[in-house]
Amino acid sequence: MKLGFLGPKGTFSFEACKNYCDNCEYVEFKNITDTILALKNGLVDEVIVPIENSIQGGVTETIDTLILNDDIYIKKELVLKISQNLMANDKYDLNEIKEVYSHPQAIAQCREFIENNLKNAIINQVFSTALAAKEVKKLDYCACIANKSCLEEYELVMLKDNIQGNDLNQTKFWVLSKEKNDVGNKLSVIFSTKHKPGALYEVLGIFNRNNINLTKIESRPAKTVLGEYIFLVDLEVNEKINDALSLLNEECRYLKILGKY
Amino acid sequence: MKLGFLGPKGTFSFEACKNYCDNCEYVEFKNITDTILALKNGLVDEVIVPIENSIQGGVTETIDTLILNDDIYIKKELVLKISQNLMANDKYDLNEIKEVYSHPQAIAQCREFIENNLKNAIINQVFSTALAAKEVKKLDYCACIANKSCLEEYELVMLKDNIQGNDLNQTKFWVLSKEKNDVGNKLSVIFSTKHKPGALYEVLGIFNRNNINLTKIESRPAKTVLGEYIFLVDLEVNEKINDALSLLNEECRYLKILGKY
Repeated sequence: MKLGFLGPKGTFSFEACKNYCDNCEYVEFKNITDTILALKNGLVDEVIVPIENSIQGGVTETIDTLILNDDIYIKKELVLKISQNLMANDKYDLNEIKEVYSHPQAIAQCREFIENNLKNAIINQVFSTALAAKEVKKLDYCACIANKSCLEEYELVMLKDNIQGNDLNQTKFWVLSKEKNDVGNKLSVIFSTKHKPGALYEVLGIFNRNNINLTKIESRPAKTVLGEYIFLVDLEVNEKINDALSLLNEECRYLKILGKY
Repeated sequence: MKLGFLGPKGTFSFEACKNYCDNCEYVEFKNITDTILALKNGLVDEVIVPIENSIQGGVTETIDTLILNDDIYIKKELVLKISQNLMANDKYDLNEIKEVYSHPQAIAQCREFIENNLKNAIINQVFSTALAAKEVKKLDYCACIANKSCLEEYELVMLKDNIQGNDLNQTKFWVLSKEKNDVGNKLSVIFSTKHKPGALYEVLGIFNRNNINLTKIESRPAKTVLGEYIFLVDLEVNEKINDALSLLNEECRYLKILGKY
C-alpha cells in the first residue's frame, strides 16, 4: 500500500507513518496540501496528516484543505508524543556547540534547555526539523533539534534526548482515505452556520438535545470577509447521531461529514 | 508616545502603526510575544499586534500571549487591506527575474501571479516579507514579494503592485494598552468552560438569552492535554452585557475580560 506523508523523511509525520504501517511504501510530499491532493488524485492509497497539536492547536493547512476538497474521509486517529532531541554529526560537549538549527516551533518548545545549556550558540531557524538534521550532517560543531528518527535517517549522534520543556506535547494525526468509514465512536463534521444571531448556539443545541458530546470545536475563516467562519467539530457517536446529522443539515448553510472513526 | 510593533520596519504591523499614529516613536520587537511583554513591562505605552487575517485565521501567538498575561486590554481595532507587491533593486522585466524571496504565506497568496509570470524563477522562503525586501536590495535580478512600505524603507523599485490572488485579504490588528477601556460597542473575552458535556452550549446560551450577538469564536488548546480548550469570543455590547458577564463568570472555570473598544 502507498502511504503519503509530509516529507522529508525524519518529520513527525514520518514517525507516525512508521507507527501506523511498517511495511507500506512511504511517499513524501512537500506540504500538507500536496499530500492530501495526492490522495484525491489517486497517486497514493492513504495519507497521514497532522490535525492538531496540544500546544500549537489546530493545523490550519490540514483543516483548510479538507474544507476545499470533497470525498476525503477519516479512517483512523493516531496520537504521537512529541519529543525533541539535540543531535549532531559527531559526539560534542554541549559547550562546544556553536550553532543550533531547527524549526521555530521546536526552538520555542526547547527554549528553557537552550537558555540553560546553549546560551552562546547562534540559533538558526529553518523550515522543518528534518531539514535542520540534513543541514547539520554537513556542519561540524553544529547541532539540530529534531525527532529521533533523524538519528538513523541522517546518521547523526544523540547529544541529549527529550529536551522539550512541556512533557504533555502531543500531536494528533488523521489517516485519510477516499472511502467513507462508517464504523467508530467518533465523528467529525465541517459546517458553516446561517447568517443570523445565535446560529452557532442553535447548532450546538442539536447536539445537546441528542446527548451528543462535542469534544472539539475549531473555527476557520470562510476566506470571504473578516467575521465569517467555518467550524470543524468532533463528536462522540451515540444512537441518535443520524437524527442529529439530519437536523444539522437543515440548520447549516454548508455541511460536510468526514466519517466515523 | 512609544508604540511597539512586530518588526522589522516594512511589515504589515508597521504599516498599521503608521496608519494609527504618524508621530509616535515606533519601537520594533522580534516577535509578537516580546512586543506584548514590552507593554506589560512598561517599555512602551501601547502596542499594535495582528489578531486575525481573513484568509489565514487567528494569529495564535497573539491569542496565546493574551491568555498567559494579565492586565493587558484592547484599546482599538484596526483593519488593514493586505496587498502584496513585486519589488526589486532595479527596474527589471518580469522574465529577467531569476529568484523570488518572500514569506511562505505571501508566496501562497500570490501563487497564481507567480505561475503566470515568474514560472522559471526559483522561489526562496524567508521568515518575513520585510526580510525578503532587505535581502533583494543586495541581489541583482531578484525580486521580493512584500508590502508597499518596503519601497521607501529599503529603496526598492516597484515591478508590479497588487499581485495577491484574493482581493478580500484583510488583517485585523488590536491596539493594546495597560489601561482597561470601558467604552465601545465591542467586547472580547477569553474563557474556559467547566469539564462537562454541553458546557460550551450553556455558555453560549447566556449570550443568546441576553440578545448578545457573538461575532467570533476561536478555540485554542489549554496546553495541558489534547481536547481541552480556551475560547476567545468577540461580542456586540448591549445594555445587558454586565449581567451576562456576571453569569459567564459563574459558569466558567476561567474568565478574562479584555475590555470594550
